[in-house]
Amino acid sequence: MQGAVLYGAGDVRFEEREDPKIMQPTDAILRMSATCVCGSDLWPYRGIQPTSGPTPFGHEYCGIVEEVGSAVTSLKPGQFVIGSFAASDNTCPNCRAGYTTSCQHREWMVGAQATMLRVPLADGTLVPTPEVPTDELLPSLLTLSDVMATGWFAAEAAAVKAGNTAVVVGDGAVGLLGVLSAKIMGAERIIAMSRHESRQQLAREFGATDIVSERGDEGIARIKELTNGIGADSALECVGTQESMMQAIRSTRPGGHVGYVGVPHGVHLAGEELFYSHVHLHGGPAPARRFLPDLIAMVWDRKIDPGKVFDLTLPLAEVAEGYRAMDERRAIKAFLRP
Amino acid sequence: MQGAVLYGAGDVRFEEREDPKIMQPTDAILRMSATCVCGSDLWPYRGIQPTSGPTPFGHEYCGIVEEVGSAVTSLKPGQFVIGSFAASDNTCPNCRAGYTTSCQHREWMVGAQATMLRVPLADGTLVPTPEVPTDELLPSLLTLSDVMATGWFAAEAAAVKAGNTAVVVGDGAVGLLGVLSAKIMGAERIIAMSRHESRQQLAREFGATDIVSERGDEGIARIKELTNGIGADSALECVGTQESMMQAIRSTRPGGHVGYVGVPHGVHLAGEELFYSHVHLHGGPAPARRFLPDLIAMVWDRKIDPGKVFDLTLPLAEVAEGYRAMDERRAIKAFLRP
Repeated sequence: MQGAVLYGAGDVRFEEREDPKIMQPTDAILRMSATCVCGSDLWPYRGIQPTSGPTPFGHEYCGIVEEVGSAVTSLKPGQFVIGSFAASDNTCPNCRAGYTTSCQHREWMVGAQATMLRVPLADGTLVPTPEVPTDELLPSLLTLSDVMATGWFAAEAAAVKAGNTAVVVGDGAVGLLGVLSAKIMGAERIIAMSRHESRQQLAREFGATDIVSERGDEGIARIKELTNGIGADSALECVGTQESMMQAIRSTRPGGHVGYVGVPHGVHLAGEELFYSHVHLHGGPAPARRFLPDLIAMVWDRKIDPGKVFDLTLPLAEVAEGYRAMDERRAIKAFLRP
Repeated sequence: MQGAVLYGAGDVRFEEREDPKIMQPTDAILRMSATCVCGSDLWPYRGIQPTSGPTPFGHEYCGIVEEVGSAVTSLKPGQFVIGSFAASDNTCPNCRAGYTTSCQHREWMVGAQATMLRVPLADGTLVPTPEVPTDELLPSLLTLSDVMATGWFAAEAAAVKAGNTAVVVGDGAVGLLGVLSAKIMGAERIIAMSRHESRQQLAREFGATDIVSERGDEGIARIKELTNGIGADSALECVGTQESMMQAIRSTRPGGHVGYVGVPHGVHLAGEELFYSHVHLHGGPAPARRFLPDLIAMVWDRKIDPGKVFDLTLPLAEVAEGYRAMDERRAIKAFLRP
């Protein structure tokens, strides 16, 4: 089979790789229907996060079950499935508590930007759709593997409720789907922080009621201005930098909630400021597996169309161009078809 | 009148001070029935937190209303009242959201270790008891001004619920009352981290089911051992150091809640560890005013006896000995009577 391999900063190659095989009786092998490039892939692509030697890349996937291990009971070849970016057994205490990305047997998925993929803990990780979907549903279904689930978790962790005011920090695909999630959860006012016109437009389409293009202290002042000087009920932090984290915390009212899902890079929180901010803080890697059944139903019933975040479609063989386009912010998110 | 003044590290003096006067129409003047020394007073007493010049000290108080300003409508002279360590109007959006210590007109109380006290925003800050209490109730009522309310907030912020397992980090008065609060909120298992026998005993009296005397990595390992390798549902952080904060975070299961009420001194949280811990974090200065009515009712009805944390009673004139005894850990908390 063929797949994407990261050789170093800016160097992604599409090349021949060994076919995946069942290694554990709980494994499944998928023939990929669609995959994509994640915002978090850009950290190592930019060399900000070091990688040791050539690494198969990608962790968002959906496809047809090709083969299952002898212990797999809930899936059979021919089914269309979506799985989380982290494999989980879905039975351990952490999974039962809803935190599947803290599963005691968690395995981070790698090498999904490929024509085939081995998925460990298949019964726990993969969720089948009612039928094999038509091509038109693929982009939205694919987002449930990570980016839509992550936006959803940001909104859940930020305790978005009917009537709330929510601020979304970050206008990447996660932030935009955070807007969509906040809208579905009933937020009355959704303030998207963005300075890019095409992203502002999609944010409005997903439900943003206000756009704030200022950042830092000016951005915080604008949010306060829009919220009677108090701050928002909820802030969704969808970037992972010190600036974005402080933007989220300082935009939230005392007693409000910050949901943070941007993988932190060099973020340090001063205990004293956090203490006097009186905010609730929650986040981490989204437990996508928990959300999959509900989100699949919403996509299947055409209630949500998160696939709109894909503004570039490429053959999988051109994966390197997908990385370049996202790195240069020419594309929000690149959809890849094998 | 007379009161305590901190002159510098280790130097508390009881001396003549000017009588408090009504300065704003919303003020009240109290004749103090009881006051005490707070664990947080020890930070400046030890010189860890600098003070600029002689400072009237103390912020926990209860007493008889002596005089009220012209705008005070809910109180009258002769009533016995308890107030929060932070004055609040109890009407602004932050107060209405329950975060009275983030009141838009908040004033931190100072100078309560005295025979008389001016309380700003009296209608918002003070809560009267049904009648003037007998002396025997004074210690428990006094704790509601800060230390019991703070333990209560730690448990609330840590989302303690019926059937939960809660860990309490810190065996000072706040930690011990955190144990009591967790017990009232229905925690099934309460693990108190303490290495002092008299404090362990009071913790057990308040409802602790387990005592862990280990600290740091060993302490965390013990907590994991006691919780099937997962961690506690709730952790109450009642100290405010880097070590205690990490103890609390690392003792909590993914998806669990850390409530932190120890005023942070030099605490820094690494974003990445917090992210992958999957804990909820909430805390800050306890909104004591919100809790006062319910806590007064519990003390009045003899359902709780938080005054047990006072293991040293002194005449107010000997306030300096109260500081010394707490600094040297000879006393958990010093009760002072004018």
